Amino acid sequence: MTTLQDIADRMGISKGTVSKALNGAPDISETLQKNVLETAVEMGYTKLRRQKADAKKLCILTENIEYEEPHQFGYDITLGFRQMAEPAGYTVEIVQAEEKLQKHTPYDVFMLRNNYLGAFVLGFSLNDPWMKDFHTSRTPTVLYDNYISANPNIAYVGVDNNEGMELAVSHLKLLGHKKIGYLSGALGSHVMQVRHKAFFQALRQNGLQSDPTYAGSSYYITECLEKHLPRLLAMGVTAIICSHDLIANTVMIQCQQLGYHVPRDLSIIGFDDLPICAYTSPPLTTIRQERIELGKSGYYALDSLMNKVSIGTLLLHAQLVVRNSTGPRAANSREYGSLQGK
Amino acid sequence: MTTLQDIADRMGISKGTVSKALNGAPDISETLQKNVLETAVEMGYTKLRRQKADAKKLCILTENIEYEEPHQFGYDITLGFRQMAEPAGYTVEIVQAEEKLQKHTPYDVFMLRNNYLGAFVLGFSLNDPWMKDFHTSRTPTVLYDNYISANPNIAYVGVDNNEGMELAVSHLKLLGHKKIGYLSGALGSHVMQVRHKAFFQALRQNGLQSDPTYAGSSYYITECLEKHLPRLLAMGVTAIICSHDLIANTVMIQCQQLGYHVPRDLSIIGFDDLPICAYTSPPLTTIRQERIELGKSGYYALDSLMNKVSIGTLLLHAQLVVRNSTGPRAANSREYGSLQGK
Repeated sequence: MTTLQDIADRMGISKGTVSKALNGAPDISETLQKNVLETAVEMGYTKLRRQKADAKKLCILTENIEYEEPHQFGYDITLGFRQMAEPAGYTVEIVQAEEKLQKHTPYDVFMLRNNYLGAFVLGFSLNDPWMKDFHTSRTPTVLYDNYISANPNIAYVGVDNNEGMELAVSHLKLLGHKKIGYLSGALGSHVMQVRHKAFFQALRQNGLQSDPTYAGSSYYITECLEKHLPRLLAMGVTAIICSHDLIANTVMIQCQQLGYHVPRDLSIIGFDDLPICAYTSPPLTTIRQERIELGKSGYYALDSLMNKVSIGTLLLHAQLVVRNSTGPRAANSREYGSLQGK
Repeated sequence: MTTLQDIADRMGISKGTVSKALNGAPDISETLQKNVLETAVEMGYTKLRRQKADAKKLCILTENIEYEEPHQFGYDITLGFRQMAEPAGYTVEIVQAEEKLQKHTPYDVFMLRNNYLGAFVLGFSLNDPWMKDFHTSRTPTVLYDNYISANPNIAYVGVDNNEGMELAVSHLKLLGHKKIGYLSGALGSHVMQVRHKAFFQALRQNGLQSDPTYAGSSYYITECLEKHLPRLLAMGVTAIICSHDLIANTVMIQCQQLGYHVPRDLSIIGFDDLPICAYTSPPLTTIRQERIELGKSGYYALDSLMNKVSIGTLLLHAQLVVRNSTGPRAANSREYGSLQGK
């Protein structure tokens, strides 16, 4: 165990100065405070003010995810986490981890300085600066939908995307569909990469033709549709799975404008089961992420990391929610290519 | 919620008879008891005697796994599970789930009859009869090293074999090895299948040649060695990863008898980190499964299933334990084919 004295010895300053710096005393310069904190983190010092009664603090770090309102994706996730953490005696603070903060302050320093024992991280993309820090971080941290290999302090929590994609494809296969397309958001996030791969795996598992041309991805939904939807329709797909519900909803609207009936001409499946899915036209068949449970699992995993049970991956079962956007493949499946050209 | 009256109505018998049958009253025939239990299970009745104080019972079902002695693989797993479950107020019973029992009694009936709220299942192979029952079971159940898709009541707990195999292969690559072989137990268990696949994936991730002929598997260790070891050596592999430690240990002994020095001529890596690994000659480099943590995670997952948090997969981080059976590839890597032929 690293002590204040160890840090003092390493830096060649007094133990009292180390203590003051760690506690943010105003007579210690900001530069020295920063150096002491970074040295403390580097040496594995973790006890900062934690003996105090008010010190049982966890944080939820958010980026690119909305959580303030009940209809937003992150709302139930943060709620589920707090439903477990608060009765266990933790205070939970939600912090926006903006890129500026991430660039300016190493992750472990941020956590130590704010006296957080652990974090639940939502919405990070692969190029968020702290994603690098997580490889070597010593702070118990649970990432929603991001995976870091071989660091015993970091866990990945999410829904089982392979299972979800398998449920979607086998549902379509049972309805007689054989040519299934896939439209995806940009592959710059872990979860989009995983779902993309899972789509092709599910095709193979169901004995369907698996060809890269059946899939298309773009950052912007409109671009994705313009670029890839006409191509898929011309190829004669009778069903399209989308990497998330908002793409699926836009695809339905666009296809209806092109004269396709959903699901008679074309079946559509989304992913996530956003609250909107019950209200789209037609209501959207989708793969549900149980968001309250995701939040609870995030706490489960974090609690176990803090207790030295080194969970690496925790996946929830996916569920297929069948609504009205999927149906049997038309007996005399239309020639979509020619329909589209009319 | 199914009531006693519902079961009575379905079967056309009195509520009193249902109650007596569920409680094993001696004046109810065994056949009727069995029918009532099966109907109760089918209808989702789950409250059997659970109001009683002594009713908080969990079981660990074992098959093909030894756990009585500290040096046996299952010992720490059952210990870790009990370390979590017993302080939480559960009684834990360890039950040998012999094939005869599994054939004779449906899984849910067994659990209900014995008043178990949930189970942690160790050592089942893919052809154990209850593996089929798990697809539709309504009893919260956690499987060590077995995966059931799309049943929200069943979770899979294990070490992250992909991460483990990646650690093993990249360790060997850093030591200069390029031709790496793999020897495995029979592929009739989920974990052997997963590790086999993970081996080839790790080769590809490390930019090494991935060819099916680099691997061999057999049920019996001796057969595995006779059939595949000479072939791998003739192909010029300079390192061999084994699907579990006992194969690795036998490979070391066999290779030494053939005149190879481990690790100078050949590096060997095992999997599991059995207690024996520190005492083999040379001590074995291996991928560690933290068995106490596996047991604790089994309880975590079971507790969450019982609380309707539908965990599907929970993987622990794998750790590489470097001992003396791995070393740098010899600068003038020997011609193993010719050495073997001497």
